[in-house]
Amino acid sequence: MTGILTVTFSAGNEGQWEMQRILPVIGDVLPMAKRLSITTNATTASEADWRLKGVVSNPRYSQAAEMKMMKPVSEGLMRPEAIYGALIPIKKSDAWWMMAQDERRHIFEESSGHIAKSMKYLPAIARRLHHSRDLGESFDFVTWFEFAPKYEAEFDQLLAELRATQEWKFVDREVDIRLTRPA
Amino acid sequence: MTGILTVTFSAGNEGQWEMQRILPVIGDVLPMAKRLSITTNATTASEADWRLKGVVSNPRYSQAAEMKMMKPVSEGLMRPEAIYGALIPIKKSDAWWMMAQDERRHIFEESSGHIAKSMKYLPAIARRLHHSRDLGESFDFVTWFEFAPKYEAEFDQLLAELRATQEWKFVDREVDIRLTRPA
Repeated sequence: MTGILTVTFSAGNEGQWEMQRILPVIGDVLPMAKRLSITTNATTASEADWRLKGVVSNPRYSQAAEMKMMKPVSEGLMRPEAIYGALIPIKKSDAWWMMAQDERRHIFEESSGHIAKSMKYLPAIARRLHHSRDLGESFDFVTWFEFAPKYEAEFDQLLAELRATQEWKFVDREVDIRLTRPA
Repeated sequence: MTGILTVTFSAGNEGQWEMQRILPVIGDVLPMAKRLSITTNATTASEADWRLKGVVSNPRYSQAAEMKMMKPVSEGLMRPEAIYGALIPIKKSDAWWMMAQDERRHIFEESSGHIAKSMKYLPAIARRLHHSRDLGESFDFVTWFEFAPKYEAEFDQLLAELRATQEWKFVDREVDIRLTRPA
């Protein structure tokens, strides 16, 4: 990947993914819709109840050794068996963003094990992170996950582990949207 | 500062700053204009020959100890005596952005001394960094500097020191725009 990929998640009546449920986690939830459309760059679904936008950008915390470990066990999106999706937008607090890089990294990995915890669920759970904060969006990140139905319990376990960390004390808003892709 | 401040630099016939000269440094230059207008958030000058946009966002490389050292010696913008300005947009290479966080940090500071070199020129030279890459702009950063006329040689010295570093081997495009603010 070179450069920036802009991705728009549009909730409405269009799109390849069927919305199954929306779970409020922290703060205000988003309204339920029928479908979700995922489009890149300028293209967006013509009408939407709500949209979330983000960019696939450079790594912010991952170190070279971690990227080297993750790469061979990371899967791409749209595997035929990965028909369950999850869209999880997150906003972190001002206290988080005002910290220096080393303070945020320390909480992210040395204290919370964000990468270490996620590694255990590779390659079953595919993930793409979208950065939204610099775009002035209402969330700072939008993470998109895909997995086969048999891994749903593992996915819930991963979320439970992450939500119990010190890093999550800095999460001001989180919504958990579950979807399926009809065969 | 909490949240994101979006700043637009508009070159044209309007604005508080008079453009004195544009120096090509690396890659394509930008066209000369009469004035530069600096506006925040939605407000922009109505017409412009060209615009650069960026956001004042969270620290990306600075560590807590460095932020603590810099804060008491950093000056804000618009000091009455700081009537010289410089606008320096920069684009870094794909090779830079694909590196892990620790690799970029190592080149940025341990190898190139970006913060250490800049520290020597505080508080004389005030600086505000704007991030543009996630916005899909043609440059990755826009840095704005302000200083009194008597510090112009020091400012040129700072740029010469930074441009001689390993970090600058990853700079694909740089333009150096000098301005004055009429008393």
